[in-house]
Amino acid sequence: MSTNPRETATLPPSVNPVERLASLMGPDLAAVDVVIHSRMASEAALIPQVGQHLVDSGGKRLRPLITLAAARQYPYGGDAHVKLAAAVEFIHTATLLHDDVVDESVLRRGRPAANMLYGNKPSILVGDFLFSRSFQLMVEAGSPAVLDVLANASAVIAEGEVLQLRSAKNLSISESDYLKVITAKTAALFAAAAEAGAMVAGASRAHADAMHDYGRNLGIAFQLVDDALDYSGRQAVMGKSVGDDFRESKVTLPIILSLARASEEERRFWRKTIEVGVQEEGDLSRAIEFLERGGALSETIERARSYARAAREALAITADSEIKSALADIADFVVERAY
Amino acid sequence: MSTNPRETATLPPSVNPVERLASLMGPDLAAVDVVIHSRMASEAALIPQVGQHLVDSGGKRLRPLITLAAARQYPYGGDAHVKLAAAVEFIHTATLLHDDVVDESVLRRGRPAANMLYGNKPSILVGDFLFSRSFQLMVEAGSPAVLDVLANASAVIAEGEVLQLRSAKNLSISESDYLKVITAKTAALFAAAAEAGAMVAGASRAHADAMHDYGRNLGIAFQLVDDALDYSGRQAVMGKSVGDDFRESKVTLPIILSLARASEEERRFWRKTIEVGVQEEGDLSRAIEFLERGGALSETIERARSYARAAREALAITADSEIKSALADIADFVVERAY
Repeated sequence: MSTNPRETATLPPSVNPVERLASLMGPDLAAVDVVIHSRMASEAALIPQVGQHLVDSGGKRLRPLITLAAARQYPYGGDAHVKLAAAVEFIHTATLLHDDVVDESVLRRGRPAANMLYGNKPSILVGDFLFSRSFQLMVEAGSPAVLDVLANASAVIAEGEVLQLRSAKNLSISESDYLKVITAKTAALFAAAAEAGAMVAGASRAHADAMHDYGRNLGIAFQLVDDALDYSGRQAVMGKSVGDDFRESKVTLPIILSLARASEEERRFWRKTIEVGVQEEGDLSRAIEFLERGGALSETIERARSYARAAREALAITADSEIKSALADIADFVVERAY
Repeated sequence: MSTNPRETATLPPSVNPVERLASLMGPDLAAVDVVIHSRMASEAALIPQVGQHLVDSGGKRLRPLITLAAARQYPYGGDAHVKLAAAVEFIHTATLLHDDVVDESVLRRGRPAANMLYGNKPSILVGDFLFSRSFQLMVEAGSPAVLDVLANASAVIAEGEVLQLRSAKNLSISESDYLKVITAKTAALFAAAAEAGAMVAGASRAHADAMHDYGRNLGIAFQLVDDALDYSGRQAVMGKSVGDDFRESKVTLPIILSLARASEEERRFWRKTIEVGVQEEGDLSRAIEFLERGGALSETIERARSYARAAREALAITADSEIKSALADIADFVVERAY
């Protein structure tokens, strides 16, 4: 955990910074939960069932927290940021529902994925409902410029997901292409969440851009650590299955880095397991061995660390505060959770 | 076709009124097509491929036409209606893509459905992209009140689709529950398309409401005729497969009406084929026979006809014009296509 000297929060610095920020945003976060639950209510009983299965299953509310924090940092006295934060969480939840159908996921945060419990049809349609609700919330929040940022992020996310389909089974994807995909599918929502918060609070363009940069870099770091964790025993501890990306023949940064200096034996292995998609017993263990031996996993974490550093640096422009300190520490935290 | 004396269009009244309206809206419709094609462009090549497969496959552009017509009726000199009409078509296209995945459709407008050609994953994700693009277009169109109408319609549609899941295999659904489902999943977009057009042109609330009523009644008539056509040989002529609803065990109005006075033999048949879902060779023919013999199909068309009449009557408030005459005739036309 951080030993940042600016640390002045009432919670001890040893506390996970996401929890610290959640504590700073306590009443706002409670208001977001009220909006989330009330706006999932529907005569179609499956909507709150499927939605709450996901919303209640231990998600950290990291994205809406960032929206709330960015707004309060400027500081903001209104309440539109609550609706925006709920909209951000709805976009995220809708994306997870559709991702799990697309990826044929079995688990999500250590619990059966919604597509497993309820089937693909409810997952697709409830996702659509939550997307629509998120737009209603944004419209209600009443700021056309903010609406534009979030609507744009939502298109970029979908575009990133489509681009990612191409990276399945494709060993020739470059590191820069891969970064483009995760910037779109993961980092765009973090960036928009932070920028929207700053904008609704009336921050200047320079500050809104800084918050956008914070979110984008944080999101990239977050995804790269996820990519590394998928090949790490740490995942099991966190209630996630290991090797999901491998089984889905997804080409992520660890594999891209590993291929750059792979032996002929390793190349043959990746071609068989990823390109051709033939996976036999013991192949996941071999994949982990190759990625660890060549340093691809630690190199992926190093890349993540430099994005986390950039996230922290993006905050330089904004005034020191407990919120700023927690946001900065969260950037380190998303990398530290890899250990 | 209509022999309405108000008919003063330059095209002869024998021409299909949808084509007549398309001709009246010529330059606007061309502008909508430009927006549709330019806003589907993406680095992710699958997006224009999947999107255009659907957009170009002979859709009549009925919903965007209604938006354009409602705007021009008031009359409107701006160009925001073009973006709104494109947004309406994107919502419709996204819904079709997701519906075809949910229904495991094989054909769409006589061509292989996108999920068959490209798989479920691109259909889900490109649908999400088009939803997001539709919101961007609405935001660009710049009218918060209109945005509210369309965002709300989009949530209602998704809610209707979820409600409809419950009507599969459920023979106890009532006629009024069924009408609620189709009002949401089909008629809400027609209603919003018409209302949004009137609103962007600055029509009064009374006129916007009248346009909403026109669209809602037209949409219900449209769906009821679709329900009847699914059990009619006419479908084959139109390049659609017959019996899709039956194979998916969907309970639609013809079955609901038939059950109300079914013999014990018929009841057993519907329980076996719809509730239990056991369908054998010859069962579709028997279903058609039962629905025709008991008059359920013609009764469904009669219901549609009364909604079409209500659609026509909703237009009474608005000034006579070629546009009004074409809209009114379209209400008759959606029923006449059943014969």
